[in-house]
Amino acid sequence: MRKYNFYAGPSTLPVEVLEELKETMVDYKGIGMSLIETSHRSKDYEEVHNEAVSLVSELLGLPDNYKVVFLGGGATLQFTMVPANLMIGSKTADYVLSGTWAVSAYKDACKLGNAVAVYDGKANNYTELPSSVKTSGDSSYLHITSNETIGGLQWQNWPDTGSIPLVADMSSDILSRTIPVEKFGLIYAGAQKNLGPAGATLVIIREDLLERSSDNLTAYLNYAIHADKNSLYNTPPVFSIYATMLVLRRMKALGGLGAVEKTNRQKAALVYEAIDQSGGFYKCPVQLENRSMMNIVFTMKDENLENEFIKKATAEGMVGLKGHRSVGGCRASVYNSMPIEGAKALADFMKDFAAGK
Amino acid sequence: MRKYNFYAGPSTLPVEVLEELKETMVDYKGIGMSLIETSHRSKDYEEVHNEAVSLVSELLGLPDNYKVVFLGGGATLQFTMVPANLMIGSKTADYVLSGTWAVSAYKDACKLGNAVAVYDGKANNYTELPSSVKTSGDSSYLHITSNETIGGLQWQNWPDTGSIPLVADMSSDILSRTIPVEKFGLIYAGAQKNLGPAGATLVIIREDLLERSSDNLTAYLNYAIHADKNSLYNTPPVFSIYATMLVLRRMKALGGLGAVEKTNRQKAALVYEAIDQSGGFYKCPVQLENRSMMNIVFTMKDENLENEFIKKATAEGMVGLKGHRSVGGCRASVYNSMPIEGAKALADFMKDFAAGK
Repeated sequence: MRKYNFYAGPSTLPVEVLEELKETMVDYKGIGMSLIETSHRSKDYEEVHNEAVSLVSELLGLPDNYKVVFLGGGATLQFTMVPANLMIGSKTADYVLSGTWAVSAYKDACKLGNAVAVYDGKANNYTELPSSVKTSGDSSYLHITSNETIGGLQWQNWPDTGSIPLVADMSSDILSRTIPVEKFGLIYAGAQKNLGPAGATLVIIREDLLERSSDNLTAYLNYAIHADKNSLYNTPPVFSIYATMLVLRRMKALGGLGAVEKTNRQKAALVYEAIDQSGGFYKCPVQLENRSMMNIVFTMKDENLENEFIKKATAEGMVGLKGHRSVGGCRASVYNSMPIEGAKALADFMKDFAAGK
Repeated sequence: MRKYNFYAGPSTLPVEVLEELKETMVDYKGIGMSLIETSHRSKDYEEVHNEAVSLVSELLGLPDNYKVVFLGGGATLQFTMVPANLMIGSKTADYVLSGTWAVSAYKDACKLGNAVAVYDGKANNYTELPSSVKTSGDSSYLHITSNETIGGLQWQNWPDTGSIPLVADMSSDILSRTIPVEKFGLIYAGAQKNLGPAGATLVIIREDLLERSSDNLTAYLNYAIHADKNSLYNTPPVFSIYATMLVLRRMKALGGLGAVEKTNRQKAALVYEAIDQSGGFYKCPVQLENRSMMNIVFTMKDENLENEFIKKATAEGMVGLKGHRSVGGCRASVYNSMPIEGAKALADFMKDFAAGK
């Protein structure tokens, strides 16, 4: 029986997409081989590749001056590539430290230039986002993490950065809601949460920023090369891009980003309601207005109780509810591909579990 | 009907492996989800991951002081990572320029430090390898490309580098033959030729060289971090590693590297024989002793004839025979997973085609 999979990533995929991957695995549309065996320069793969690129553009409503690129190496490699490409000479690069992932991005940027932490949530244990951000003046860019997968925080109002490019790590909430794309200079996201299987990383970049990619950069680290070659400078992660294309195609069929966001809000509301109406049995440490729609973190009075909760939930077919090992507690990741029935089942289970104590 | 797939990469995979990927795509061994949906920290994925690492080690007969790492970004990212990690201060790094890929690796190294071309095959149009290599003295390492996928050259006798670490890009011949592993300091290879689907890159590194990875490197570029975390510092390319593990498991079942090499030699001999016994109808531009067992390149008297050959071969179920766009001609890639029947079919077709002219 299929489980409800609340893993934080890699994470649940639509079962229809898995069925299609299964169907095409040995022979892709009668071509006598799998898509993963064809050249990345073949017509069959290029169609898939270009459809993935177009669907990203269409679903997000990207203006013409944005390029869509698929890379490997995960968001972690982007912690290198963003400063390596976008930092300008001695100018600063501003980072909002909102949790584990933002701090990781910042640490890499510090190794490459003058990175500045314009906000650090350490004092509140990374449970709050700043209500506004003051950039350090004439900086190269401002980096934020739109959703902290571990901490369970999510930006609801985007900071106003004027002419300073806003860069966002959207690994855990890409394409989960509509966004004012024109506010962003660069967006990146590992595939394995809202897009598809691990292996690909999506980068969306405003064309004028490509001019910052220096010729002194080595080839793979250079955004301008990948954008110029339509992500075919070297062999792309074919399977992950193919599966992502199928996920995006399904999102479009479901009605696009607006429809997906509506369901995501309903799913999150179900689980947060179970927390908020538990009379303190479940506690979400995150400031109310910064709560994530994607990663819902909660604790109980002690670890024994949390372990019992996780064990019983697993027995009832709900897996992946353990919080990240660095923070403990529980975490329900309800990405795009988690059906609303999964969120309902979890909310009901939470109510029953609390009532039984 | 299944085609014989001579693509240079991504390339043919064993049909049994594709069948197993198909079987497990929706539900992996009854766990209620696909392996690509589970956390990379789950027991199920960790077993696969560790088996992939062990099989690389076992098949190559790696001594204990070598680490096996899986990364993303392809061999192209290794063109950055090798010099970024292994170049020592002002010391040189020596490169043998044997063709397209070696030159690409060298160009990136030049951006990161004092890279020196100790051999350049440009004068012979990259059709010969040097019979011996003189390193530039006290260099950081010597880099070679064990097999040039485009040019169709392959090293048969490894250069003697003394105490200077030998680094090899083995993207297109990794695990195709036995090698004296202890001669190498570092070996890297994109998965998509001999190992599995695109997305993962294998890196094998001698432990003492990990000490060269500076703390000033950003996280993803640092070999020591990946080795220390068993390639789980960030989310690995799960599907590609899983498929690679299945390919390696099958290689072991077939008798290991010795058996695989024997078949590879037979396959290459069949095709080269068709070339050499054609009375000059087919020509291989590569120096006899440097011919590749993996990528067999050949030309005919003109492009029209080559196009006719490729068209007819395609009609008979043999695809991917067009040479790389940068050099033209024909190329048959007969990696590990090409069955001997494929090589026989091609050799027979070549004889028939020549006889009909």
